[in-house]
Amino acid sequence: MSNIAENVIFGQNVTIGNNVTIKAGCILEDNIVLGDNTYIDFGTIIHSNVEIGENTVIGARCILGEYLVDFYEDRINKNHKLEIGKNSLIRSETIIYGDNKIGAYFQTGHRVTIRENSKIGEHVRIGTLSDIQGNCEIQDYVSMHSNVHIGMKSVIKKYAMIFPYVVLTNDPNPPSESLMGVTIEEFAIVATGTVVLPGKTIGNGALVGAGSIVTKDVAADSIAVGNPAKDHGPTEKIKDAITGEQVYPWRYTFDRGMPWEGIGYNQWIEGRE
Amino acid sequence: MSNIAENVIFGQNVTIGNNVTIKAGCILEDNIVLGDNTYIDFGTIIHSNVEIGENTVIGARCILGEYLVDFYEDRINKNHKLEIGKNSLIRSETIIYGDNKIGAYFQTGHRVTIRENSKIGEHVRIGTLSDIQGNCEIQDYVSMHSNVHIGMKSVIKKYAMIFPYVVLTNDPNPPSESLMGVTIEEFAIVATGTVVLPGKTIGNGALVGAGSIVTKDVAADSIAVGNPAKDHGPTEKIKDAITGEQVYPWRYTFDRGMPWEGIGYNQWIEGRE
Amino acid sequence: MSNIAENVIFGQNVTIGNNVTIKAGCILEDNIVLGDNTYIDFGTIIHSNVEIGENTVIGARCILGEYLVDFYEDRINKNHKLEIGKNSLIRSETIIYGDNKIGAYFQTGHRVTIRENSKIGEHVRIGTLSDIQGNCEIQDYVSMHSNVHIGMKSVIKKYAMIFPYVVLTNDPNPPSESLMGVTIEEFAIVATGTVVLPGKTIGNGALVGAGSIVTKDVAADSIAVGNPAKDHGPTEKIKDAITGEQVYPWRYTFDRGMPWEGIGYNQWIEGRE
Repeated sequence: MSNIAENVIFGQNVTIGNNVTIKAGCILEDNIVLGDNTYIDFGTIIHSNVEIGENTVIGARCILGEYLVDFYEDRINKNHKLEIGKNSLIRSETIIYGDNKIGAYFQTGHRVTIRENSKIGEHVRIGTLSDIQGNCEIQDYVSMHSNVHIGMKSVIKKYAMIFPYVVLTNDPNPPSESLMGVTIEEFAIVATGTVVLPGKTIGNGALVGAGSIVTKDVAADSIAVGNPAKDHGPTEKIKDAITGEQVYPWRYTFDRGMPWEGIGYNQWIEGRE
Repeated sequence: MSNIAENVIFGQNVTIGNNVTIKAGCILEDNIVLGDNTYIDFGTIIHSNVEIGENTVIGARCILGEYLVDFYEDRINKNHKLEIGKNSLIRSETIIYGDNKIGAYFQTGHRVTIRENSKIGEHVRIGTLSDIQGNCEIQDYVSMHSNVHIGMKSVIKKYAMIFPYVVLTNDPNPPSESLMGVTIEEFAIVATGTVVLPGKTIGNGALVGAGSIVTKDVAADSIAVGNPAKDHGPTEKIKDAITGEQVYPWRYTFDRGMPWEGIGYNQWIEGRE
Repeated sequence: MSNIAENVIFGQNVTIGNNVTIKAGCILEDNIVLGDNTYIDFGTIIHSNVEIGENTVIGARCILGEYLVDFYEDRINKNHKLEIGKNSLIRSETIIYGDNKIGAYFQTGHRVTIRENSKIGEHVRIGTLSDIQGNCEIQDYVSMHSNVHIGMKSVIKKYAMIFPYVVLTNDPNPPSESLMGVTIEEFAIVATGTVVLPGKTIGNGALVGAGSIVTKDVAADSIAVGNPAKDHGPTEKIKDAITGEQVYPWRYTFDRGMPWEGIGYNQWIEGRE
């Protein structure tokens, strides 16, 4: 009862669940599993060893299971498995490498690039044109907006939010081979156009203002702004410009896409304890 | 007398004008109108409810009428019309959502993304990799270079120019639901790598220098530079490094692509009055 | 003895060497030469007048020989030749214009854009999403990371390295017609998020720190950092944070991808003299 366009090209060992749609121009190579109710839009290329969870939508012209560098040695695609969790939405023209395991309810914008060995949790959102360089850890409910660049070895913890044109760097003495990843702790907010220098940590609930260059660690629940970024005191002093109400910690004022959506953070966290 | 490749896939109710070219690998879904003398290059996807004006060229592998978020609920494309004006040039791999009306003589670079409800005037140019986030207003003769990010609710008025890696933000207390768009007034210039904070206005004819972080409104015909941007006096004091001549207001020294091209601003504006 | 998918579309005068692979969905127009052992992945478009050297791999859905602006006047592709050297690796979705000659051992990431008249040497690497605006000179062994923007008329000399989100500008009085390109001298390092203003020179072996706005020339072997960038003394004073050893000139501590790889700079340079 699936709906597969005539000109789709299949390799070997492709397993297709119930109620799957595959639109015209798609290419599926070998050893692929499409869960029930998956939807693959026009012209997507799925290289070998890819498994897609049920109810997931893959937009037009994505490339899933993109080659790692070892392909180019002998033009043979090695076994680098890509798993994408159920109920995900990958928008058009996204490229995801093999050797990745991505949790359920994943969402991307357009033209996202995700390289190998990016450990990605559940309910993660990555915006248009963002570039995840591989060997990162991105935990549950992390949200990245458009055009974010996550250098290798970065760790981004739960509920952190990263705004457009933020770059997490990793090379303390460029060029070198001794990469030191950035750590973004839970609930931290990194605003637009910020560059975080190698090995630095943005503390739990901290707020880094737009256009900052972060050259040293930012303390938990503190504000850092400027080039170079300087401490501007606790986040709790920030008032909403219109309502005059306290804004941070934002978990009490914002819930869209969060596990406490419609419940409130306090009631949700109490329910878990 | 049109020239349509053999393997093009057509849905229902596709109306094709005279002297239209559609190259191999294109997919046209339902309720599409292609004006006379339009040219659709290899592999472009036109989803349903798209109307393209005469003489317009669509480059290879664009996606026009891209799905809004309501598609993903039930995998049914709702009626979100996209109109692209006549005499436009959309370069390859550009993605434009439905629910957009774009004026004549529109030009894009490659891989531009334009989300829904972006009200775009005539003679607008948007450079390679730029990302228009939707619910914006972009007036006639606005020019954006490569890799510009226009946040939701931005208003960019006539003849304004935005240079590479500029970001117009919109969230005063990230994350929040109270978005405040940026306003760029007529003839304003925002130079490379500038971030404009939510709700701020760049005045008529103002010049924001490269790498600025704009944290407050910039007055008309004034220079703002730095992180944070500070007032550096009137634009009229700037002299050309080589010729020593006054540069601003630039409408008197520059005319390429402007309605006063080859006429001069004074004569053009007098002719209109 | 080549391996060419059934649905590949060929124009006239396509010359294919020995042991060439062309995967499904590719389109090759007229006057194309593919050297021995080239590999063209799924869905790549090769417009007319393109020559690809032996052993080169072209990833999926690239566009090679992209139209210059004169195409759009009459929809006729003029003779703008693109040559890509042997042993190159062009990753998926890269767009390269005609009127380009690119040396051997060229490597790109994904979605790179290279406009016309970019003179590119051998062993050059350009990262994902980078945008080379044309009329540039990029010499041997230059390395650019992701999302770099190289304005027209830039000159980047041998062994220079440019990190993510760097922009080389060119218009001293925007908008104007008097473009002045940036020059990056040999061995210079430009770190993440830096903007270099028009006509400025980064000296031989200089280091520009992350997030800098370069408003004047940077002396050879010196450190420049900040907005605006200021002189912070000689690079030789920088010690590795972990080992305490001197880091710069980096040619003595780093060799990956360089002609002195595995030999050491001193021994290599002596062997050449």
